[in-house]
Amino acid sequence: MASMEGYRRFLALLVSALLLGFVAVVCSIVWVLRYREGLGWDGGAAEFNWHPVLVVTGINLGFHSIIVYRLPWTWKCSKLLMKFIHAGLNTIAMILAIVSMVAVFEYHNARKIPNMYSLHSWIGLTAVIFYSLQLFLGFAVFLLPFAPVPLRAALMPIHVYSGLLIFVAVIASALMGITEKLLFSLQSPAYSESPPEAIFVNCLGLLIVTFGALILWMASRPHWKRPPEENAKVQRPNGGAPEGVEAESTMTDCSNADRSDAGFNSEAARKRNFKLDEAGQRSTM
Amino acid sequence: MASMEGYRRFLALLVSALLLGFVAVVCSIVWVLRYREGLGWDGGAAEFNWHPVLVVTGINLGFHSIIVYRLPWTWKCSKLLMKFIHAGLNTIAMILAIVSMVAVFEYHNARKIPNMYSLHSWIGLTAVIFYSLQLFLGFAVFLLPFAPVPLRAALMPIHVYSGLLIFVAVIASALMGITEKLLFSLQSPAYSESPPEAIFVNCLGLLIVTFGALILWMASRPHWKRPPEENAKVQRPNGGAPEGVEAESTMTDCSNADRSDAGFNSEAARKRNFKLDEAGQRSTM
Repeated sequence: MASMEGYRRFLALLVSALLLGFVAVVCSIVWVLRYREGLGWDGGAAEFNWHPVLVVTGINLGFHSIIVYRLPWTWKCSKLLMKFIHAGLNTIAMILAIVSMVAVFEYHNARKIPNMYSLHSWIGLTAVIFYSLQLFLGFAVFLLPFAPVPLRAALMPIHVYSGLLIFVAVIASALMGITEKLLFSLQSPAYSESPPEAIFVNCLGLLIVTFGALILWMASRPHWKRPPEENAKVQRPNGGAPEGVEAESTMTDCSNADRSDAGFNSEAARKRNFKLDEAGQRSTM
Repeated sequence: MASMEGYRRFLALLVSALLLGFVAVVCSIVWVLRYREGLGWDGGAAEFNWHPVLVVTGINLGFHSIIVYRLPWTWKCSKLLMKFIHAGLNTIAMILAIVSMVAVFEYHNARKIPNMYSLHSWIGLTAVIFYSLQLFLGFAVFLLPFAPVPLRAALMPIHVYSGLLIFVAVIASALMGITEKLLFSLQSPAYSESPPEAIFVNCLGLLIVTFGALILWMASRPHWKRPPEENAKVQRPNGGAPEGVEAESTMTDCSNADRSDAGFNSEAARKRNFKLDEAGQRSTM
């Protein structure tokens, strides 16, 4: 059966992504504990080391927040509950991002190293600023009950796109950060002599890229999207794209849900998807 | 009228992207001519300098190849002609990528600098290898007339996704390259002292990111896609996604085309789009 096969493929990708994300976090910890000065909060190198660890952990949380709507076994839960999980994961990731930046600034200041001179810092900080905007606007528009449906409809494709774009920008920024750190830290032997640390951290970089590529694939397959709520009241403004916009279900936990089509890609769910697709309303990046 | 407004928005983005891409290429040339050793082919720094210039030019060509199917005024041209343009642009970009790598290898070898030790080189080379695979497979499957429609259908979403992924990976790699080059080249004053060259090239990096973000937005809006051919014979395998797959029109130039719906987002074109959308067949990343 095609949908069963699609489900297995989804699960295989999900497990791979979970594994890659977990291994990436472990590698970042191994990096700073085994090859660097460990972790601490003393204004020294050990404080700086929180920066890569927290960023890689934050990227991993970002993945969980992106993928949370795609999990078929949550489709019987209310959209509101899933939104809280989505917002919660991103809030934690945001806090990690801020702490990770504080670590760098304190380290730089203690050593009289200038802040914010590198392309890494420019793009990293820009990504964090857009991330906080995204979080604030997402909360105000999609979580609070005040925004009218047409506004949600108009903003949803932008929210989805900019979320994925920030995810990619953070990964690109992490790769630049790895490049900087290895060039600064590896002296004898230098980065160009490919000592074990260089190989290890290059592999971490490849791991993060592969991880990101998997997530973008999973997030951009329209047939893996959460089907719209049953009591959907979708407005269709001219040219608008009210993706995923529907009246909130009053359910807030999964247990008392009795949706008949909780199965993955059930015929009913597909049909509802396609009805929305018809108006170009489920456009993801 | 909504479609007219959509057309204007598309044009505004297109002009912005063309401008940003052009300015990025100019900036890369200004960088090496004004701040670095100019351009040459002598195994020295002037040979290396072809690397950033050709990569930025290649990214720009990649943009043109991505966007070529989105230009409404080409929708009256045959798909085959557009495929030739798409493949041609990518072939030129591929040649530039190879020359740009030769420049670096020759420079490294002349100076006894090791090759392929940095994350930049790993991700850059991986991207170029995947790019050549993409070009070869794209040519074999979508341009040559031998591949059966179901195979084209199954591969198209992967082709689109991996094309955009390679585009992003090349940009990420370029950002790492900028980071490396500025750290190596700026000595007194150093990168951390933010001399004019540092600021200038950081801005080039931001420019490339903004450019990439624009292109991803334009490429991922389903309503800006080229409508399928009129004589489309789309098969719909279970769960498959035969995006953009249709029997080839015999037209090979634009002048003798007499499609009635050449206008942007005409009602007929939209309807055909939506019919395909209904089967989840126009899934882009």
